[in-house]
Amino acid sequence: MSIKVGINGYGVIGKRVADAVAMQPDMELAGVADVATDYRIAVAQARRYPIFGATDETVAAMAAAGLDPAGTLSDLLEQVDVIVDATPKKVGATLSDRYRRAGVKVVYQGGEKHELTGVSFVAEANYKEAVGRDSVRVVSCNTTGLVRILHALREKDLMARARCVLLRRATDPWESHRGGMVNTVLPEPTVPSHQGPDAQTVMHDLDVVTIAAAGPFNLSHMHFAIVEAPRPAERAAVIEALEDAERIVLVRAEEGIEAPNSVIEIARDIGRTRNDVWEVPVWENSVVATGREILLTYQVDNEAIVVPENIDAIRAVTASETDPAASIALTNTTLGLRRQLLAPLTRA
Amino acid sequence: MSIKVGINGYGVIGKRVADAVAMQPDMELAGVADVATDYRIAVAQARRYPIFGATDETVAAMAAAGLDPAGTLSDLLEQVDVIVDATPKKVGATLSDRYRRAGVKVVYQGGEKHELTGVSFVAEANYKEAVGRDSVRVVSCNTTGLVRILHALREKDLMARARCVLLRRATDPWESHRGGMVNTVLPEPTVPSHQGPDAQTVMHDLDVVTIAAAGPFNLSHMHFAIVEAPRPAERAAVIEALEDAERIVLVRAEEGIEAPNSVIEIARDIGRTRNDVWEVPVWENSVVATGREILLTYQVDNEAIVVPENIDAIRAVTASETDPAASIALTNTTLGLRRQLLAPLTRA
Amino acid sequence: MSIKVGINGYGVIGKRVADAVAMQPDMELAGVADVATDYRIAVAQARRYPIFGATDETVAAMAAAGLDPAGTLSDLLEQVDVIVDATPKKVGATLSDRYRRAGVKVVYQGGEKHELTGVSFVAEANYKEAVGRDSVRVVSCNTTGLVRILHALREKDLMARARCVLLRRATDPWESHRGGMVNTVLPEPTVPSHQGPDAQTVMHDLDVVTIAAAGPFNLSHMHFAIVEAPRPAERAAVIEALEDAERIVLVRAEEGIEAPNSVIEIARDIGRTRNDVWEVPVWENSVVATGREILLTYQVDNEAIVVPENIDAIRAVTASETDPAASIALTNTTLGLRRQLLAPLTRA
Amino acid sequence: MSIKVGINGYGVIGKRVADAVAMQPDMELAGVADVATDYRIAVAQARRYPIFGATDETVAAMAAAGLDPAGTLSDLLEQVDVIVDATPKKVGATLSDRYRRAGVKVVYQGGEKHELTGVSFVAEANYKEAVGRDSVRVVSCNTTGLVRILHALREKDLMARARCVLLRRATDPWESHRGGMVNTVLPEPTVPSHQGPDAQTVMHDLDVVTIAAAGPFNLSHMHFAIVEAPRPAERAAVIEALEDAERIVLVRAEEGIEAPNSVIEIARDIGRTRNDVWEVPVWENSVVATGREILLTYQVDNEAIVVPENIDAIRAVTASETDPAASIALTNTTLGLRRQLLAPLTRA
Repeated sequence: MSIKVGINGYGVIGKRVADAVAMQPDMELAGVADVATDYRIAVAQARRYPIFGATDETVAAMAAAGLDPAGTLSDLLEQVDVIVDATPKKVGATLSDRYRRAGVKVVYQGGEKHELTGVSFVAEANYKEAVGRDSVRVVSCNTTGLVRILHALREKDLMARARCVLLRRATDPWESHRGGMVNTVLPEPTVPSHQGPDAQTVMHDLDVVTIAAAGPFNLSHMHFAIVEAPRPAERAAVIEALEDAERIVLVRAEEGIEAPNSVIEIARDIGRTRNDVWEVPVWENSVVATGREILLTYQVDNEAIVVPENIDAIRAVTASETDPAASIALTNTTLGLRRQLLAPLTRA
Repeated sequence: MSIKVGINGYGVIGKRVADAVAMQPDMELAGVADVATDYRIAVAQARRYPIFGATDETVAAMAAAGLDPAGTLSDLLEQVDVIVDATPKKVGATLSDRYRRAGVKVVYQGGEKHELTGVSFVAEANYKEAVGRDSVRVVSCNTTGLVRILHALREKDLMARARCVLLRRATDPWESHRGGMVNTVLPEPTVPSHQGPDAQTVMHDLDVVTIAAAGPFNLSHMHFAIVEAPRPAERAAVIEALEDAERIVLVRAEEGIEAPNSVIEIARDIGRTRNDVWEVPVWENSVVATGREILLTYQVDNEAIVVPENIDAIRAVTASETDPAASIALTNTTLGLRRQLLAPLTRA
Repeated sequence: MSIKVGINGYGVIGKRVADAVAMQPDMELAGVADVATDYRIAVAQARRYPIFGATDETVAAMAAAGLDPAGTLSDLLEQVDVIVDATPKKVGATLSDRYRRAGVKVVYQGGEKHELTGVSFVAEANYKEAVGRDSVRVVSCNTTGLVRILHALREKDLMARARCVLLRRATDPWESHRGGMVNTVLPEPTVPSHQGPDAQTVMHDLDVVTIAAAGPFNLSHMHFAIVEAPRPAERAAVIEALEDAERIVLVRAEEGIEAPNSVIEIARDIGRTRNDVWEVPVWENSVVATGREILLTYQVDNEAIVVPENIDAIRAVTASETDPAASIALTNTTLGLRRQLLAPLTRA
Repeated sequence: MSIKVGINGYGVIGKRVADAVAMQPDMELAGVADVATDYRIAVAQARRYPIFGATDETVAAMAAAGLDPAGTLSDLLEQVDVIVDATPKKVGATLSDRYRRAGVKVVYQGGEKHELTGVSFVAEANYKEAVGRDSVRVVSCNTTGLVRILHALREKDLMARARCVLLRRATDPWESHRGGMVNTVLPEPTVPSHQGPDAQTVMHDLDVVTIAAAGPFNLSHMHFAIVEAPRPAERAAVIEALEDAERIVLVRAEEGIEAPNSVIEIARDIGRTRNDVWEVPVWENSVVATGREILLTYQVDNEAIVVPENIDAIRAVTASETDPAASIALTNTTLGLRRQLLAPLTRA
């Protein structure tokens, strides 16, 4: 029997999770709710998803704007087993009582505090911790990227501690004409930045420190990592650890893949919807191992990276799949994640 | 019987035309040729297109890079009825003798001179001029946009002359880390700019003057047009002329579609491969008619706009379809052009 | 006897006008008032200008921040003949009663409505209209640039009507990390844009229409003008009209001055404080005259261009100088405006 | 007796060093040589510096362009004691024989190899090593910044090893319309990057590793440093070490100085020519000390930072001043370097 899923908040994350849910054999998308009444929600309707207004007023405004709402968020909550809360930062917390009263499981995003759910989630690292819980929090894009990499290394005994500089995108593409940055860099005033402690909500005993800054671009974050291994490390072992891990791909400057826009161009070329890169691309040429020190540079597609995690989180909270590997494999297959970005495509 | 098509130059235009050819019921993609041996051509192989090297040396280099070339450009030319030349500016001219000797029809791009073919092409404006010709030149993205708009207006007797400011993107997304622009604007030193005369190679008696500049962004060009109608014009008539035209869509700031990145976001949301916008989006709120003066602002997706024109040009030179409307309709349907960007999508 | 001048609002415009006032032989800077208590006002103190808090609370906050305020805005108003209101848009209007009660003349900026003063001001065009008025409004940077150019042409009977596309900077350099734009262009939703009517508040019978958009850069606006002359125009006459005009300089792409950043680089090289370009640079190579049509492209340094106008406006409202040419000449000399950017500098 | 100095290469560095030389009481600027004949060299003439052409042809071209050259590079070399070679990367090496034959001392820039001179130079770190040498190499901007910071820490026994991520500007402001970057980040393909080994040419036993990337902005580089102290470090001691060092200033986000553009804005506000920031601004709020680990973020004004080093290098190679502190103090005073950016300015 399908898991009935609703999405509250049809923004950067919500719309991607909606599409991903719609592609799962074991899930059914009951609809998406939002407060917007403009083109942002009209695309949901164009995709033939039932749309719901946050309130009666939103429903009326949607109708006035020529849209065809199916009801309110309350109506949506009645129809679902799980709600994915993809509302703006801190809004989810204000809705948690309502979700609880509606008797639905909840998947929150990284804009909420860890304490809201008690379980923060990156499928590759701690799926089992989330199985059967009432709610779970999928950590933010930067933290997800960080955890994937550090977890992959630690699994092979290559990670004792990490120091990372995170260069964040200024804004998302859709809103780049509203809030952005011109010709400068904005270091986060608080050092270390919050992503380190946030990664520790998933990998509890992680020794990690992060420094963050934002730059005037809108495609992906870039992470520069300096890792100390518990013992002298071979470069080949590092490469192998990354190759073996889920949702990580290696890319090479010498093949012309010089920068994050090259990776996005490949995503466009291989037909990824919205050019989404769910995997973490690591530059193989950036991987250096000297003694116990490992350096590596990787990209985090901030719009896309948490989408497979949300799908896995839905299975975890509903306990419809208790085996992490099985859920991850199903998600990867349905979405089309790849071990090598340039592997041959299946003929349609 | 299918038209056998080869693509020479698998870059920004070539790779898109290749995909478009592969989607046509009356065409067959014989393969793509290029000089690159890196990820740019590897994506063609990932898409399972036969790849050809420009020379024997390229073939060897492709093989050395782990690719599986099917032969040289010469081999490709032997297999095709039409070659689409999408090589860099002015390279096409150096190959024209070779194409002629191979006995293939040729579709060149706007980087070549009008004189190379004697016929410059925008399907909506002068398809018939190209029917049965040995070669034709699809004009550049800016000129294509300009012609579509001015032709649409002139068809309804709304255009006597036009003065346009063209704000061009600095570079294309894939190469934005190599050649771009930071925090400035580059006015083209030659005024008027070449796009006006270029539009006249398609609409021969057009009264048009353009001024061009480039800015530090890579998504689309923007055109600001000031048109003089031959008689007092009603705004409603202008809107109607644009709605009736092929490959033009109206968008509205009041629906949240405020800037070119909003349009690209919709292209992402509705599943367009590579976020391509083959249509010319005109901001309906920018359309003003006062006396004989008409103002309007529109977007030109420089990567995508000439793709449907190339498909039509293939049909025109082969005379496989002599009715412009029939070719345009088939191209539009197969690629998925829309009259309204936000109309409901067909369920897959 | 010196004109005692206060500045209310020590931002982009206010700080420049403060410096300019301090350089005038016939003016005395009594001080600057602001609500800020951070580095922005600390630079005023570093320049040894008396600083005033907007309110008692601001004064206390300034002191707490280690600054040494001389009093409140009220204290400043008691000491001055003229207040230059350079507060944010629409704040000036809320202060007008207070200024009136204080018995001071007021120079407002273009963020206020024309109706607030009844006289909008560009020295070169309508200085006399402002002589002896209680208050005057210096129009915004774009309008000032537009008026300078169109007035210069009309003076030589070269301007019957103008159509201009204004490409605005996204934000100012100091705040580029807060509000900016990334990789897009934002067309102003209202067409025509407000700068045309605004220019008419200075040149009352001007036939001008403007279309505006903003781009992701922060140095200067660019204007692309299409002017219709009342009679066939010679290019040489246009060049001469621009050379003869005040506060306009000609620059040439063939001398390597290809873009606005080149002009700013010259401003840096010749020692301009803050790289300010008070003049309107017109690209000589962009000037084209064909029949009655004139094309030209020019730059508007949005931070600097209104500074000399504010100085002239102070003299006009106080009627300390009734001859426009005399005031303009004095302002130009003291600030160091040039007829040619690259003319030899005076040895210090 | 004055040191006679010539500058070969009047570009980003050369023009700044020329101005700085002209301000020194113990130096005389004999002139500047270049290959350019456009506005870039015209500004030298506007500043009344004698200009020299690289060759007879350049001299002729300069004259043809309306400039007034004083001779060729050979003529300049005859007049000077020291030539500052600020030609493009690797050009200096091709001129070294010629300089030697002319019997002049040479100050090269960081684009040349260390081996060319055998002495690489940052005044604060190794002035004495350069005293009396025939030639010396002032290291590049990034290396200069790195050395200043690490040397300052090591002087106080706070630095055992450092790991730094260097985020470089894409291009310089003057050429931002020619070669730049749009909406992406370019990681340097070689990891570690060359700045670490380069710093070791000055501080010979330094344990430092750097990773570099470039971003789409043109004002300054940003460095994110992770330093390991030889013993547990107090934050106050780190702050004090930075305060005590030459050519380092502390800035604070809580005073509104949030980003490099804020620092540049202050440079503009306090009247710095070309907004140059010769000091290394360190964000005090970024300084964290935990156990033996120290984090800090700082800015490197790539156009300006090496200017005082060049002045000191001139004194070192001529042995006109053998005391580093004396030269540094004189350079700092004449240029106007500051311990606190916002300290009161001297009244002119």
